[in-house]
Amino acid sequence: MSYVLNGGPRKVAAETAERIHQAVAQLGYSPNAAARALNLGVIETMGLIIHDITNPYYNSIAATVQRAAEQHGVSLITASTLEDRSKTLSHLEAMEARQLRGVIVTTHMFPEAVRAATRMRTRIVQLDSLDPIPGVPRFDMDFEAGSWLALDHLTGLGHRRIAFVGGQSPVDVRIGPWRESHRRRGVDPGPLRVVPYTREGGYEGMRDILADEVPTSVFAGSDLIAMGVLRALREAGLRVPEDVSVVGYDDIPESEFAAPPLTTVRVPIEKMARDAVEAVLDPTAISDSDHISAPALIVRASTAAPRRTP
Amino acid sequence: MSYVLNGGPRKVAAETAERIHQAVAQLGYSPNAAARALNLGVIETMGLIIHDITNPYYNSIAATVQRAAEQHGVSLITASTLEDRSKTLSHLEAMEARQLRGVIVTTHMFPEAVRAATRMRTRIVQLDSLDPIPGVPRFDMDFEAGSWLALDHLTGLGHRRIAFVGGQSPVDVRIGPWRESHRRRGVDPGPLRVVPYTREGGYEGMRDILADEVPTSVFAGSDLIAMGVLRALREAGLRVPEDVSVVGYDDIPESEFAAPPLTTVRVPIEKMARDAVEAVLDPTAISDSDHISAPALIVRASTAAPRRTP
Repeated sequence: MSYVLNGGPRKVAAETAERIHQAVAQLGYSPNAAARALNLGVIETMGLIIHDITNPYYNSIAATVQRAAEQHGVSLITASTLEDRSKTLSHLEAMEARQLRGVIVTTHMFPEAVRAATRMRTRIVQLDSLDPIPGVPRFDMDFEAGSWLALDHLTGLGHRRIAFVGGQSPVDVRIGPWRESHRRRGVDPGPLRVVPYTREGGYEGMRDILADEVPTSVFAGSDLIAMGVLRALREAGLRVPEDVSVVGYDDIPESEFAAPPLTTVRVPIEKMARDAVEAVLDPTAISDSDHISAPALIVRASTAAPRRTP
Repeated sequence: MSYVLNGGPRKVAAETAERIHQAVAQLGYSPNAAARALNLGVIETMGLIIHDITNPYYNSIAATVQRAAEQHGVSLITASTLEDRSKTLSHLEAMEARQLRGVIVTTHMFPEAVRAATRMRTRIVQLDSLDPIPGVPRFDMDFEAGSWLALDHLTGLGHRRIAFVGGQSPVDVRIGPWRESHRRRGVDPGPLRVVPYTREGGYEGMRDILADEVPTSVFAGSDLIAMGVLRALREAGLRVPEDVSVVGYDDIPESEFAAPPLTTVRVPIEKMARDAVEAVLDPTAISDSDHISAPALIVRASTAAPRRTP
């Protein structure tokens, strides 16, 4: 059946195609997309621009966007900026030139790219992307609410000064709630390190903190950073969570397999990706405004009450 | 300068373009690609078809291919089959229809896709892809040699019966050397579990083995599988490498951050990817035959001599 939808090499009689279309419509596929794919003879394609194809968070987004697009009979191609924001514009232009069905952008954008995007004919939708493009639907999560979930979990366990190892892109939005959490409790903020969003960044940042002090808890700006934090603590002979509690952010697949399994903030990628694909393929279905999703706390084995005076 | 190479919105005087071309040529970019990009007004693009965009091994390939392509002034778009081999053909057709500069295929292919590929005008190159397409350059690694590196490392440490937790795609080529290693030493093979190439697959496979026996060593068909093996051993209260040694395959980035850091077989992705890109962009540079690279053993902390009678 995918052959008919994809318009592959096999020819299909008109009557058969009609029956398949009906079945497809009943299954919840978009009949427009399926019909268009049949007419074109080649499967329709939409684009996705991600920040870094080696970052599992973006890979999860890509897989989820792809599954949602394929539900509509549309295939997905992905372009990565490899963390170089300036490439977003040339990727957008290349996709515009190839007349894709639409493009989902997850990367941060320079003003120049934002201006160019507003002039393009290709349908553009933003997903987890700062730097809003005027008139473009944007799907994002509530970073502030997610940060409070992590911080309140740690303070609820009895931690007072919380270390923060976060990213630089250009500034980690989780730093605000982290500062505010200490201020409200009348406590001096714990140590802060701003590092790249990588395992290596988390590792170096945590080693640097440990050279000065051993905090009772660490809030990492991403799970990838948390993987490096865990390694630095392990190498220093510190046990998690007995000596130090660690909370991550994103809930990437490897977090459940970490030693110990990581407590983290789950981003509702599934729903955001489905909605973003819907907004690309059916512009009337979704309003051209900001859609903000709420994150959830996933408690695993990397957090516990402090055993030392926090 | 990237603007001139990408042929972005800004217009460049012919004289300036010529000077830039010279500079570009000196910097080692392909002047043909740069000139073509200038003429087209949009950066040239090549394609990459990968097995699974959530598998870090393929993400490393994608990042490496992209860096190599960008050295030639060509951008990369990636399509994933999400482990469904039948999608390779529709991805190939979509890329052929969009007149990409060429396509690197890493996925296994059904005979139908192989036949279709031989008829396409688009330049196709295979990278770590079984099912050779006649007349197409293929870059692969010596899986057998890599397996022997892992097996000889374990037997050299004194391990006798080695467990194997490997993948199904359609059959793990590492099983042959694993069997042969036991046969040559006159030892009954250790337990064997065939699982998906995922962390979950490795976890379930290892739990299943531990229900019967505790081997002194495990050879995992991929690092992703090894991550699941490590988790299952950890949950069973077994220490690595004191109680059980584990060797992986691939050397994905998270292996260095595992607990303990994973001994594994490193695939020379960098060189293979650069050569494959070269073969796409300059068909005269590389012969249309098989190019097989040699892997290397990376010894970290997950392997040691057995403390129990092996």
